[in-house]
Amino acid sequence: MMRDFSDDHSALALNTATLGHNVEGQGAGWSPEQVIDTCCELGLGGVVFWRREIGGAAVRIGDYARRSGLTVAGLCRTPFLVGPSAPQPRQKMLDDFEASIDMAAGLGAGVLTIVTGGVEPGTKGMGESLKRVAETVAEMAPLADRRGVRLALEPLHPVYGGDRSCLVTVRDAVDLCEAIGHPAVGIAVDVYHVWWDTSLAGQLARAGGQRILGYHLCDWLAETRDVLLDRGMMGDGVADLKSIRSAVEQAGYDGLCEVEIFSANDWWKKPPRDVLQTCIERFRSVC
Amino acid sequence: MMRDFSDDHSALALNTATLGHNVEGQGAGWSPEQVIDTCCELGLGGVVFWRREIGGAAVRIGDYARRSGLTVAGLCRTPFLVGPSAPQPRQKMLDDFEASIDMAAGLGAGVLTIVTGGVEPGTKGMGESLKRVAETVAEMAPLADRRGVRLALEPLHPVYGGDRSCLVTVRDAVDLCEAIGHPAVGIAVDVYHVWWDTSLAGQLARAGGQRILGYHLCDWLAETRDVLLDRGMMGDGVADLKSIRSAVEQAGYDGLCEVEIFSANDWWKKPPRDVLQTCIERFRSVC
Repeated sequence: MMRDFSDDHSALALNTATLGHNVEGQGAGWSPEQVIDTCCELGLGGVVFWRREIGGAAVRIGDYARRSGLTVAGLCRTPFLVGPSAPQPRQKMLDDFEASIDMAAGLGAGVLTIVTGGVEPGTKGMGESLKRVAETVAEMAPLADRRGVRLALEPLHPVYGGDRSCLVTVRDAVDLCEAIGHPAVGIAVDVYHVWWDTSLAGQLARAGGQRILGYHLCDWLAETRDVLLDRGMMGDGVADLKSIRSAVEQAGYDGLCEVEIFSANDWWKKPPRDVLQTCIERFRSVC
Repeated sequence: MMRDFSDDHSALALNTATLGHNVEGQGAGWSPEQVIDTCCELGLGGVVFWRREIGGAAVRIGDYARRSGLTVAGLCRTPFLVGPSAPQPRQKMLDDFEASIDMAAGLGAGVLTIVTGGVEPGTKGMGESLKRVAETVAEMAPLADRRGVRLALEPLHPVYGGDRSCLVTVRDAVDLCEAIGHPAVGIAVDVYHVWWDTSLAGQLARAGGQRILGYHLCDWLAETRDVLLDRGMMGDGVADLKSIRSAVEQAGYDGLCEVEIFSANDWWKKPPRDVLQTCIERFRSVC
């Protein structure tokens, strides 16, 4: 059953990417504390940070958020585990994976997002790369679990299949969860990456609410100009946001809805407070 | 069972897009007759043209190919049937659809490719658009059948889902075939569009050899710079070409393998005869 959020938007979380954190001279340029203050002021329920914004201040920022009454819903992200841009040698990748778990634990972020990385050099197709992802996540899951962090495998859009994510469907993500078989491992569902998948509702039901660790909002613009940095505001694209949310909640997810919009030439150029107001309005009207 | 083509490449067909037909000042700039002559000389088994290359000369070009011993394996393509770029009003689209069937029949091309078009304006997600595609194809299939032309629904990569193709998986294409239920309707399978799909072999088996009307070759470059015009030569990317071909043939397909490479900044700039020689070598070694 879809919950009624018409009178508040505490189910909404901000992923700081929405404010253009990661492009020099664009976006808010706010400190994590400023982000937390503004989210609280506007009545959001949570925030998701990126590692580059936190540095060595995880515990301090996590405490600041908790004292402010804001949930740190997640942290982006592990290093790539496989593919052409994964840290080499493997131990370096594992060390960085552990550092990302430590940071999530320090922040008190319950979920750490995994972006798998692309097709492992020297191999073809997804099979071997997914197998190595399963091995690495199985290896790290007990450590994450001990630190109170769950690992969310996020399938990315198939356009990223070569270099950024050998994991491109919810189906494969649930298969990975089943292969790994650890309760600290689940999936993240991002509208941008999965909107086109007509089998989505069935795969989310298969995942079940326990395994869905995050739900990310934006929109797919009909004429996307740049697959990395031209995401749309909810309502401006072709994704069926109400149906996808309904499927996520029917599957049992009752966590926050996290808005994550990479938009270098549009939303990152607008005043960040206006962007947040628009996110809230759209969350109420079209999500 | 995979056939042995080590001593010939008559199973290879050229889609003329590979020679950059459609960009001013790039590619071969050959007439259809020159394309036919060169394909015959190099020992290819077939050719696939685009409508813009044929104009009013379908019967003459078809006859020329047959006299030369070359199969005209297909014609690209119908207008978009739905989405923001479909001809309006609908009757204009239907008239152009019929004109494309006429051209395929005139050429003696057994297969006409359908690219569906994107998400219908005013709707969200794929559902309504796919329903309209099914209605239109069901309406046109008897006409195509009477003219000896089969209609190949080609799922495009999900990156085109918004504006070019609401049909983005083989699964949905087979669902459409089943919904339409006409023997003149099948699917085309293009490596570029489906390489990432780990459920591919199962869906091809579900389609069956009778419904697979075309198999298109190229490669997905790990770092694709432009999703329209940066396709790779077979062997230069991350697609598992041998496994995909094996799955297509295991499903019962015994038609030609059609090389179709859109590559504005690489292969279209090379001498077309060299491009064809490379296609032949790669077809033998990596496909």
